[in-house]
Amino acid sequence: MPRPPYLGAAYYPEDWPREQIDADIALMLEAGMNVMRLAEFAWSTMEPRQGQFEFGWLHEAVDKLGAAGIGSILGTPSATPPAWLTERYPEVLFVTDEGRRPGHGSRCHCCPNSPVYRDHCARIVTKMGEEFGADPNVIGWQIDNEVHPMGAPWPARSCCCPVCRARFAERLAARFGTVEALNQAWCLSLWSQAYDSFEQVPVPNRVVWHHPSLLAEWAEFASDSYVDFVAHQAHILHRHTKAPVGTDMMPLIGVDHVAANRVLDLVQYNHYNDERTLHVAAFWFDYMRGIKPTVPFWNTETQTGWNGSVAVNGGNKPPGWCRANSWLPIALGGEANLYWLWRQHWTGHEQMHGAVVSSCGRPLSMFAEVREIADGYRAASDFLAETEVVSSGLGVMFSTRTARWNQYLPIAAGFDYVGTIVERIHRPLLEAQYRPDVVTPSTDLSGYQTLVVPFLYNLDEDGLRARLVAWVEAGGTLVIGPLSDVRDANLGKYRHAPFGSLEEWAGVYTKFSVPGGPVEHELSWLSGGQEWTGSLWADGFEARGAEELALWSSGPLRGLAAATMRSVGSGRVVLLGTLLPAQGLDWVLRQCGVAPVATAGPRVVLAQRRGESRQGAVLVELEGVGGTFTAPLAGVDLLSGDRFDQQIPMEPFGVRVIEQ
Amino acid sequence: MPRPPYLGAAYYPEDWPREQIDADIALMLEAGMNVMRLAEFAWSTMEPRQGQFEFGWLHEAVDKLGAAGIGSILGTPSATPPAWLTERYPEVLFVTDEGRRPGHGSRCHCCPNSPVYRDHCARIVTKMGEEFGADPNVIGWQIDNEVHPMGAPWPARSCCCPVCRARFAERLAARFGTVEALNQAWCLSLWSQAYDSFEQVPVPNRVVWHHPSLLAEWAEFASDSYVDFVAHQAHILHRHTKAPVGTDMMPLIGVDHVAANRVLDLVQYNHYNDERTLHVAAFWFDYMRGIKPTVPFWNTETQTGWNGSVAVNGGNKPPGWCRANSWLPIALGGEANLYWLWRQHWTGHEQMHGAVVSSCGRPLSMFAEVREIADGYRAASDFLAETEVVSSGLGVMFSTRTARWNQYLPIAAGFDYVGTIVERIHRPLLEAQYRPDVVTPSTDLSGYQTLVVPFLYNLDEDGLRARLVAWVEAGGTLVIGPLSDVRDANLGKYRHAPFGSLEEWAGVYTKFSVPGGPVEHELSWLSGGQEWTGSLWADGFEARGAEELALWSSGPLRGLAAATMRSVGSGRVVLLGTLLPAQGLDWVLRQCGVAPVATAGPRVVLAQRRGESRQGAVLVELEGVGGTFTAPLAGVDLLSGDRFDQQIPMEPFGVRVIEQ
Amino acid sequence: MPRPPYLGAAYYPEDWPREQIDADIALMLEAGMNVMRLAEFAWSTMEPRQGQFEFGWLHEAVDKLGAAGIGSILGTPSATPPAWLTERYPEVLFVTDEGRRPGHGSRCHCCPNSPVYRDHCARIVTKMGEEFGADPNVIGWQIDNEVHPMGAPWPARSCCCPVCRARFAERLAARFGTVEALNQAWCLSLWSQAYDSFEQVPVPNRVVWHHPSLLAEWAEFASDSYVDFVAHQAHILHRHTKAPVGTDMMPLIGVDHVAANRVLDLVQYNHYNDERTLHVAAFWFDYMRGIKPTVPFWNTETQTGWNGSVAVNGGNKPPGWCRANSWLPIALGGEANLYWLWRQHWTGHEQMHGAVVSSCGRPLSMFAEVREIADGYRAASDFLAETEVVSSGLGVMFSTRTARWNQYLPIAAGFDYVGTIVERIHRPLLEAQYRPDVVTPSTDLSGYQTLVVPFLYNLDEDGLRARLVAWVEAGGTLVIGPLSDVRDANLGKYRHAPFGSLEEWAGVYTKFSVPGGPVEHELSWLSGGQEWTGSLWADGFEARGAEELALWSSGPLRGLAAATMRSVGSGRVVLLGTLLPAQGLDWVLRQCGVAPVATAGPRVVLAQRRGESRQGAVLVELEGVGGTFTAPLAGVDLLSGDRFDQQIPMEPFGVRVIEQ
Repeated sequence: MPRPPYLGAAYYPEDWPREQIDADIALMLEAGMNVMRLAEFAWSTMEPRQGQFEFGWLHEAVDKLGAAGIGSILGTPSATPPAWLTERYPEVLFVTDEGRRPGHGSRCHCCPNSPVYRDHCARIVTKMGEEFGADPNVIGWQIDNEVHPMGAPWPARSCCCPVCRARFAERLAARFGTVEALNQAWCLSLWSQAYDSFEQVPVPNRVVWHHPSLLAEWAEFASDSYVDFVAHQAHILHRHTKAPVGTDMMPLIGVDHVAANRVLDLVQYNHYNDERTLHVAAFWFDYMRGIKPTVPFWNTETQTGWNGSVAVNGGNKPPGWCRANSWLPIALGGEANLYWLWRQHWTGHEQMHGAVVSSCGRPLSMFAEVREIADGYRAASDFLAETEVVSSGLGVMFSTRTARWNQYLPIAAGFDYVGTIVERIHRPLLEAQYRPDVVTPSTDLSGYQTLVVPFLYNLDEDGLRARLVAWVEAGGTLVIGPLSDVRDANLGKYRHAPFGSLEEWAGVYTKFSVPGGPVEHELSWLSGGQEWTGSLWADGFEARGAEELALWSSGPLRGLAAATMRSVGSGRVVLLGTLLPAQGLDWVLRQCGVAPVATAGPRVVLAQRRGESRQGAVLVELEGVGGTFTAPLAGVDLLSGDRFDQQIPMEPFGVRVIEQ
Repeated sequence: MPRPPYLGAAYYPEDWPREQIDADIALMLEAGMNVMRLAEFAWSTMEPRQGQFEFGWLHEAVDKLGAAGIGSILGTPSATPPAWLTERYPEVLFVTDEGRRPGHGSRCHCCPNSPVYRDHCARIVTKMGEEFGADPNVIGWQIDNEVHPMGAPWPARSCCCPVCRARFAERLAARFGTVEALNQAWCLSLWSQAYDSFEQVPVPNRVVWHHPSLLAEWAEFASDSYVDFVAHQAHILHRHTKAPVGTDMMPLIGVDHVAANRVLDLVQYNHYNDERTLHVAAFWFDYMRGIKPTVPFWNTETQTGWNGSVAVNGGNKPPGWCRANSWLPIALGGEANLYWLWRQHWTGHEQMHGAVVSSCGRPLSMFAEVREIADGYRAASDFLAETEVVSSGLGVMFSTRTARWNQYLPIAAGFDYVGTIVERIHRPLLEAQYRPDVVTPSTDLSGYQTLVVPFLYNLDEDGLRARLVAWVEAGGTLVIGPLSDVRDANLGKYRHAPFGSLEEWAGVYTKFSVPGGPVEHELSWLSGGQEWTGSLWADGFEARGAEELALWSSGPLRGLAAATMRSVGSGRVVLLGTLLPAQGLDWVLRQCGVAPVATAGPRVVLAQRRGESRQGAVLVELEGVGGTFTAPLAGVDLLSGDRFDQQIPMEPFGVRVIEQ
Repeated sequence: MPRPPYLGAAYYPEDWPREQIDADIALMLEAGMNVMRLAEFAWSTMEPRQGQFEFGWLHEAVDKLGAAGIGSILGTPSATPPAWLTERYPEVLFVTDEGRRPGHGSRCHCCPNSPVYRDHCARIVTKMGEEFGADPNVIGWQIDNEVHPMGAPWPARSCCCPVCRARFAERLAARFGTVEALNQAWCLSLWSQAYDSFEQVPVPNRVVWHHPSLLAEWAEFASDSYVDFVAHQAHILHRHTKAPVGTDMMPLIGVDHVAANRVLDLVQYNHYNDERTLHVAAFWFDYMRGIKPTVPFWNTETQTGWNGSVAVNGGNKPPGWCRANSWLPIALGGEANLYWLWRQHWTGHEQMHGAVVSSCGRPLSMFAEVREIADGYRAASDFLAETEVVSSGLGVMFSTRTARWNQYLPIAAGFDYVGTIVERIHRPLLEAQYRPDVVTPSTDLSGYQTLVVPFLYNLDEDGLRARLVAWVEAGGTLVIGPLSDVRDANLGKYRHAPFGSLEEWAGVYTKFSVPGGPVEHELSWLSGGQEWTGSLWADGFEARGAEELALWSSGPLRGLAAATMRSVGSGRVVLLGTLLPAQGLDWVLRQCGVAPVATAGPRVVLAQRRGESRQGAVLVELEGVGGTFTAPLAGVDLLSGDRFDQQIPMEPFGVRVIEQ
């Protein structure tokens, strides 16, 4: 069986002549691949008529791949029901907020809560489990494909069928107990919205300007529906296989990644970042790594050279980019990188997407680069297997629930939670070589010395509030704000203070708060004399036990504190009242004694690894510029065999695996 | 009871703990407020179940406010029916052009013509009248909230329910008598549109490219429906109260402001202009002042510092802006300025809107400015009460019917009637200190020496044509055009000439007309030698009894007149064939002997006031720049106590109330 | 009866008082017009109640026009059914993909396949044929008006009524025989799309992301439906008249122009190009000329001075533009130019469109220019009648089927087939004076020496593949690519090679293909040393029998051929792997021995004419710049009487008709 790191692609033998598989396998071996992902959309080929199964073609594919040393990952096909299914059982189809059911011809268009659909899914998944659960060539399973609420644009996404409507009313009843409690929690006296029964609460549509708390609850319901849809299949597969089961997720926030993985065995993740956004990919990898921290994640989809559907999107990638893009997940804690797709589709919705070989079976122009990556994976295989990514002890907190809330309640003008965390918090830390983890409210905090918690509207997710206090008192440094702890669990503001707990924790009184823009205000740090501009939001604090770190020097908050620090137990709370520029965040961390793990320039990810007897680091250049990089590393690059001591030359999109 | 000017805000005690009212009142007094607006959305709190009323909470609020010297304005809650109402009587809900009824959770979503809805409204309004009609603390009433056709985007707005469809057919029958008359009036042989019956005439929808005359008629029907909806409640309230009854209107043109106020007692107006658009607010105030010229209007809504719904819009305002924004309605003839809202909502659709105090009861950063405004209102109270705004005798004619027509028949490329009147006609006159009134086709013209009548497609509104002629013959100076008198009352062109009467009135023959753009043509004035560029539209006239004022000097109209003047009776008609730049309009007025009322710079509104024994002026700086301002005024600023003589220094967004 | 060239306009006497016609005719004669187009939307006037016909008004108009020497073209009114028809037979109305039927008040809103609608159309068309078929004053017929799939935005256009759905299933059955064959042709194993029956195949809607092959088939069905709708009326008219029958078509690609004209007698074409796009008009005229090569086409609609609906669009045109615009169709093979419209509508949807005279019957500002055009037509009438346009022997191939496919399958990022052919292929050839014909896959190729065939996805339309081979072998020079021959007749890729036949024809092996952008790559020509940048797409060829014309000099294809040439029989195949800049295309043609027909600058169309005893050329300046133009022409300008020898001065938008 193949050894990690896995290099592979999505393979759709059902769309090609059966005899072509041998030529495909020969090319896969030439490309150096050791894993293929199959069957995710092949329901109509596996069950062409209800209850009539045809697995011969798939056995043949898995067997032939296995004989060539190539493992298979099998996908359950629930994203694409056959035409006979949706024709005979139209109630399984997704219903839009306008009451419309999409017809056949697309994907991911069924209701996640439909008991009828789940029964059909159970049948095909059970059958696949029976057929392939014990097959040693099947090294893993993928449930469905990119599950995510679909349909209308936000805020009206997710299925609105009668089943979902009833389930939503049940959820509200379970959560609030009485409709009076709901009316109070959402202040439904406002606009005479108060309901007389849970059944009266509408599922959101695009016509009505809805209460953000309703929209948020609906989004949580949608997320939970898909989590449960995945879990339903996972339980079936776990009865038939020992191979790890996952579901390939996207860098979208409609489904809670943490919740979706609770009953799964490993994290599967798809991304289509390009030459300008590898730092975004790094954010998501830093996040995916921690969802199941003891198991390396799989990067189940990425591109080789270009995206496309009925037209190419974004053009061809520069030389070396495929290398950096393929090593980045490995550097950041993954053990697999699979391209979408092996051979370009010869027709259909996505026929212009790039691949490894063309529709007519000719290697594409980056084929040689793929082969080089495969060679590198093999050369570093032992080192990677015997070491693990070293955590810096610095975490940036990210919550997809907050991201969902942010869509209905941006609070600040134009505020995009995910984009701001990625570009304004994680990216500066990435580029300054802090090597941050991305943690969630569910993460075990005990391994962290420092947490940066920006924009976390509510601190009650997974009992975080109490855990944070305990963690600070035990010595943690909490850098929190702006816009954290500003809403209760129903999206309502606190009425005793602008924050739930932060005035108390931080020892401040919030005199005034003003929104950011159109003119941004300046603040100056009391120690060191730096002057920066705060953006997005501006709180002006009076210190009541806290030490002032920075004062506002212009605008309506002049003279009030923009940032404060207070010791709490063995730890401390740093409260930020505004969004700082990159240098400002760096300055705060240094004030707290946090230091980067390297002095490298901004364009290189340096991920240290340590095992029982080996250590070193993986380096990936993200921007295609290259240069020489200074790091506290001396050792041999396992890819080139060259030895380096602190000065490490990197070609554009270069990769080094240096063992010390 | 409080004395004007009123300073206040919208107050929603139903959304807060009952015991909080005392703290709120204490803060209101600290802010210097003397009026609160209540109950406009509180139907579900006042009538939680059909026919079961709870007014105790509202009596308590009105009483406690009254005890503190704060008057109450009560709103009828018909914008927000309770859930039990729309669930039990779904026929009251608005129907979109696609046949869809919005669900619960928004506002202004009921049919204005629904007899069932009107009965429900009558019940709650009657009950409120019985409870509060004689309450001395209730100083006024507001009907509904911002009534306006809603639903689909233009042109398909307004309710399309069966009741409205039947009423529309009845309206057509009443207006045209026979369907043949309708077919002829709209030339429905064209495209074989001719109808066989009034019932066959569709209400507009977004799918069909409709005849503009149909769209216009539908818009008039919608406007009239809302006018009637408001009148229905006004009649009820008038049976129970002596306090003035109004309806708070927006700077939108879907409902005719003049018609809406015919049976009301005073004009109520809401606006959300910002630091770049106080001149737009001035236009609307100059218009609102004249709708009921003997009664000062109320500015029932404006912002303190920022707008917002689920996010802040537009950011915080600069220092002093709240002052200028709060004094501008007073300067221009109002007697009340109310902020929306008193205390920021703690949740819901508009939780990020600014206010006077925060959700947790802390004064916001402009609180001190509000207090200063309150002090100023008090200091100027007697002077304002004993004087009235002096009219300049110059009117700019504005018609919301024309504005509605303009949406379906822009005539010139991209022509926006309201924006062009505001920015290209009123603003130049405002900045040149002409201090114009904004009049309507219904206005009594006898008080005016000069009227500027641009873009008034049709002269038959409220019998204007005959009244204009009589007014000119009696000595008035009519400056008319371009694009005035170019359509009959059904939006058809005249077939005998390009104008209904203007060739005859002005003594010209229109040789050629060409649309403005893409190249603009030049014209030169025969007297004075100025050269300007005409835009939007270009008529070329031959004088037939008129004096040529300006000739086209380039383009296809070269040599023809662009503007003419002719004496008519004791007055004269100045005909403009194009849209002039600001200096051109100024030149025309000076040719007609019209002069500015002051020589101040463009940024200050100077509104003269005169009473039996007192006189002076209110000055407001609109752009936040400040400076020293020259005006024929000598006297004492009642706000600062300082004395000035013609040279008046103004701080940014400064205000003076100078008594001579 | 009038002689060509015809100069005329659309005339709607049904919308005006009956007695006005004499004044209109007097003005028409003053303008020099000799043809009017009538009745196209007048169904409700001709048949005000079902089966009750009124043709008196139309006879009177045709007779009076005829008496004045003005011929009539009659339109069948099927674009605008009367209200009684759509009310009594609502099933005739178009159904959108959302299942909605538009109401009355628009045009072109009926189902082309509705048997009920066709019966009604047959009745009115038959009646018109009986009344006017033998009328000598009727010089031609127009069927419907601008037939084209309407309704939703692409890709979901065209009627989705039950009749259309059934016909579409029948079409699929006829085309594929078995549903298994359909499933295979479109590879419907992909995403489990495979159908169990033809009835299961949905008509496309906007909600579902559809397979591009389905969308393309649906678009062909729509095109064929309209072609058949037109043919149905043509057969009726042909039974009643000897006058030529056509249908006025637009520069849109929803209906195949070639197919639509198969049973018609002459090509009718409407366009609204403006001062910046006369070169676009030239493309379409070069195309229209060849659809029925033995009969001059009629330009049935164009503007005099400005477009407009409820507002003017685009403004007034510069002096002379109307002249160039009116002569261009004559220069390029037409014999008629009609303005839309004679007299501006006095109301309705299009009341702001320009015309020849205004709504009140006054000549518009370009009236004198129209008169000058009429005089010119008369002066050149004999010469034009006795000569024909001379073909250069160079054809650019254009296919509306490819244009329809391109909408669902752009292949390259942002690739617009029509725009690219017009701007990047035809325009350079136009400006370099190659005087190209625009040919189609159906064109008889025997008259051509050289064909440029870019972006023709599939070569199987009308048996082109075999005909092309034969034509090359017989001596033709085929300049083909990029993106030609890259899809089979079902929009699938070939699986044996990137091309169906081109590798074989051209003698190459395609090593790599990469999409164009974001960085464009350079190529250099082996002969001559020019360096250009290829765009849109990049194929890299290895020569296997071909001569390399150009090699890629940068990027992933460096060293591979970008263009090749190979002799085939007496002809040759030049294969282009990328979109060349204008100079590159010129260089290729010169390498092939193709030369421009004149050395004139880029702004003049020079169309040579030759007859039995006369020859010369028509010259039209397209850009309003003017200048002196060098051409191998010596003779007399029939318009001015001036004689020229090779140096021909042209005023802006000037026209010359030079007889040698």
